[in-house]
Amino acid sequence: MKPGHRLMKHFLQFKDLRAEEYAYLFERARIIKQRFKNYERYQPLVDRTLAMIFEKASTRTRVSFEAGMYQMGGSVVNLTSGDSQLGRAEPAEDTARVVSRMVDIVMIRTYEQTKIEAFAAHSRVPVINGLTNEYHPCQILADLFTYIEHRGPRGATDPLQCLQGKVVAWVGDGNNMANTWLQAAEILGFKVHVSTPSGYEVDPAAAGVSDTSCYQVFNHPLEACAGAHLVTTDVWTSMGYEAENEERRKAFVDWCVDDEMMALAQPDALFMHCLPAHRGEEVTAEVIDGPQSVVWDEAENRMHVQKALMEYLLLGRIG
Amino acid sequence: MKPGHRLMKHFLQFKDLRAEEYAYLFERARIIKQRFKNYERYQPLVDRTLAMIFEKASTRTRVSFEAGMYQMGGSVVNLTSGDSQLGRAEPAEDTARVVSRMVDIVMIRTYEQTKIEAFAAHSRVPVINGLTNEYHPCQILADLFTYIEHRGPRGATDPLQCLQGKVVAWVGDGNNMANTWLQAAEILGFKVHVSTPSGYEVDPAAAGVSDTSCYQVFNHPLEACAGAHLVTTDVWTSMGYEAENEERRKAFVDWCVDDEMMALAQPDALFMHCLPAHRGEEVTAEVIDGPQSVVWDEAENRMHVQKALMEYLLLGRIG
Amino acid sequence: MKPGHRLMKHFLQFKDLRAEEYAYLFERARIIKQRFKNYERYQPLVDRTLAMIFEKASTRTRVSFEAGMYQMGGSVVNLTSGDSQLGRAEPAEDTARVVSRMVDIVMIRTYEQTKIEAFAAHSRVPVINGLTNEYHPCQILADLFTYIEHRGPRGATDPLQCLQGKVVAWVGDGNNMANTWLQAAEILGFKVHVSTPSGYEVDPAAAGVSDTSCYQVFNHPLEACAGAHLVTTDVWTSMGYEAENEERRKAFVDWCVDDEMMALAQPDALFMHCLPAHRGEEVTAEVIDGPQSVVWDEAENRMHVQKALMEYLLLGRIG
Repeated sequence: MKPGHRLMKHFLQFKDLRAEEYAYLFERARIIKQRFKNYERYQPLVDRTLAMIFEKASTRTRVSFEAGMYQMGGSVVNLTSGDSQLGRAEPAEDTARVVSRMVDIVMIRTYEQTKIEAFAAHSRVPVINGLTNEYHPCQILADLFTYIEHRGPRGATDPLQCLQGKVVAWVGDGNNMANTWLQAAEILGFKVHVSTPSGYEVDPAAAGVSDTSCYQVFNHPLEACAGAHLVTTDVWTSMGYEAENEERRKAFVDWCVDDEMMALAQPDALFMHCLPAHRGEEVTAEVIDGPQSVVWDEAENRMHVQKALMEYLLLGRIG
Repeated sequence: MKPGHRLMKHFLQFKDLRAEEYAYLFERARIIKQRFKNYERYQPLVDRTLAMIFEKASTRTRVSFEAGMYQMGGSVVNLTSGDSQLGRAEPAEDTARVVSRMVDIVMIRTYEQTKIEAFAAHSRVPVINGLTNEYHPCQILADLFTYIEHRGPRGATDPLQCLQGKVVAWVGDGNNMANTWLQAAEILGFKVHVSTPSGYEVDPAAAGVSDTSCYQVFNHPLEACAGAHLVTTDVWTSMGYEAENEERRKAFVDWCVDDEMMALAQPDALFMHCLPAHRGEEVTAEVIDGPQSVVWDEAENRMHVQKALMEYLLLGRIG
Repeated sequence: MKPGHRLMKHFLQFKDLRAEEYAYLFERARIIKQRFKNYERYQPLVDRTLAMIFEKASTRTRVSFEAGMYQMGGSVVNLTSGDSQLGRAEPAEDTARVVSRMVDIVMIRTYEQTKIEAFAAHSRVPVINGLTNEYHPCQILADLFTYIEHRGPRGATDPLQCLQGKVVAWVGDGNNMANTWLQAAEILGFKVHVSTPSGYEVDPAAAGVSDTSCYQVFNHPLEACAGAHLVTTDVWTSMGYEAENEERRKAFVDWCVDDEMMALAQPDALFMHCLPAHRGEEVTAEVIDGPQSVVWDEAENRMHVQKALMEYLLLGRIG
């Protein structure tokens, strides 16, 4: 058994960590980002290897995890469904047993949450959810860090304080992103205003939240945006749902974040999008390319929060 | 010409190395594994690059070679048939000439042994067989190391001694694994009891063994297992033979390693399998998940013996 | 803004750099290659990450950039059209914005030159053309370095001097290679003798050369080779033009570099080919495997000049 094996943690959904651990992660991410910007070498993960298992293609997740690991001094093995056999030639449990003997940490991007849970249950090393049908915790980690970076305190004071009582407007599909926003709100003490087209509602049971006071449902996206500190959305048709494309285009036609929605939000509200974006569909070019949009910082911050996350899961002193 | 060019060795089949070289490799693998387990940094292959050429998909070979090289401080270029052109757009000889100018060592997983031989003949750097239709020497290296680890002496005494006179029962296809077991037995002084279905016999000429006393053929797998110190098998249908799947399922039905077979073997016999395993086909769940099975150690050991092998081919002092 | 951002350079076509910069690059490549051959560790790019974006498959470009980056101490993220989304799910501009936040330098192999230009226009980090329909500047960089290595002065004297007034015979398709030769001739003061089949002429406007004195067109390849110091060619059918294969085989039948052509060139003329080569089509086996051919050095030199190029774009002091 490896040192610290009994204390091993996974990051399979947002509620796997507690508020104090998020405070720690955001503070570490801030320092790690600063070092990167200053070209200060910081390589705590030398000798450590990350295995990435992709059953869904991705640019952002690939580059952010891989470049992030390199910046921390580690190395990466990238397995795609083309060259790996996760759940095909052998049960995911067997792959977990084998792969976790050879590497130090695993990131998985797959379809069913049950698959990553099965892998984690038989893994000797920490497993990170890089996206499932149900959750996208790394993205929300990046989004919250980006909010804190733009609207939070300077320096080392409690990064969570600036989130208290804030309102996040979720405009669009009640998907893995929406589920994860709900979990984050429950843990970190903010509120989500959700507006989805009919038939695409968030299911709080699927989201896994017990406290329904952390979110409120609105029929129209304009209502959801009223007074929001952060307005955020996602593509109308996520990967894996392409067959529903036509149907979704009709259902989502009013769920396009535009200047009218942003005008109803707080004057200093931010706009975020996990990308790739389709201008003219879920967001107008004016909004995503406008002054309230922080989507490029948000994308870069995926890398920095994930570096902090890997550092914590492998070396972290609290927990 | 690079230093040591005239002394360059490949590892294309098991008989490419001599017994004293295996003794050295097993001892190095033991030390290298110990360092890994103790988180002791050991990076003798800094500045060295491994090119992996995969014409057959693989999880285990990918991860074990790639993570292994990183642990030794080196780097890896992974070429799959999708992005490389081995033998397609140009002769394998030309690819060998080019690739071996740029990297320090090459691992190839392909179909015909003749292809890897042609590559090696024009390579300036050592070439390792990561699996061909004919041989799988890295796997047998791992299996023998795993046997020594579990049944051999503690510490630095001759690792080969514990193999003398032992019996390995091969139950199943007379394939590349079986061929390689025969070569290993001839070189290292143990004996293989082979039992294959009719029509799937081992061909000693194809295996490349001259001394037929290193193996014995049995009609029934139970006979092959009697008194064995190690029982091992492989999937009924290896990659590339999927078209024969139905036919093979019928032919191999009695070649399932089960408790009855294990009961006939030595009381402390080990069970090995190169994975992926199909429980209920070539092995029962009781055996592979039971106390005599060392398949997860065996899988991990692929990585450690391959680190020792790369170290030896690049830096080794004996030979 | 990163340090040096305002001085950032891309290498999208050969004329992006000036003669004095090429002199610097060739000298750096000489030193970097020498260190590699002597196993002297030189890792100026530790902490730097290269992203490679491949929309066209490649062995040589993959291995030369990736192994080269590792030798310089850096790391590499390899994105192929399978796992990336360049211009598919999002505009190339958005991918540029995101990727260039996470890595330090980008190499792109794509089809249209306009695509790499669009990417570069929105990139925060240097972009290198690894091959487009229009240009192949890294290959010509390697070819010129190889010429200097074989026919230039020993040691640190001006590497460009030996190119003055020399004649390069281009035999074959008026493609990206031919275009780039013309640009190089204009900048570095040599002359290209071009002979293409009818219908496959070089277009000087597409090549982007203003001074037509840098090249001369010949109807017959024999005439182009007369007095040449370097004879070079390419496959009849480049990637992406496979549909024209039959038509091209007829048109190019006389554009096969053979002993007769080489006999008309200078007695010490070199033969080069960017590979893969089809013996018996664009070149005879006698020529490519003969004493005047330097194609393996040329292939290896891709790696060394690209190391010098990445070093220059990231750290270079002149410019």
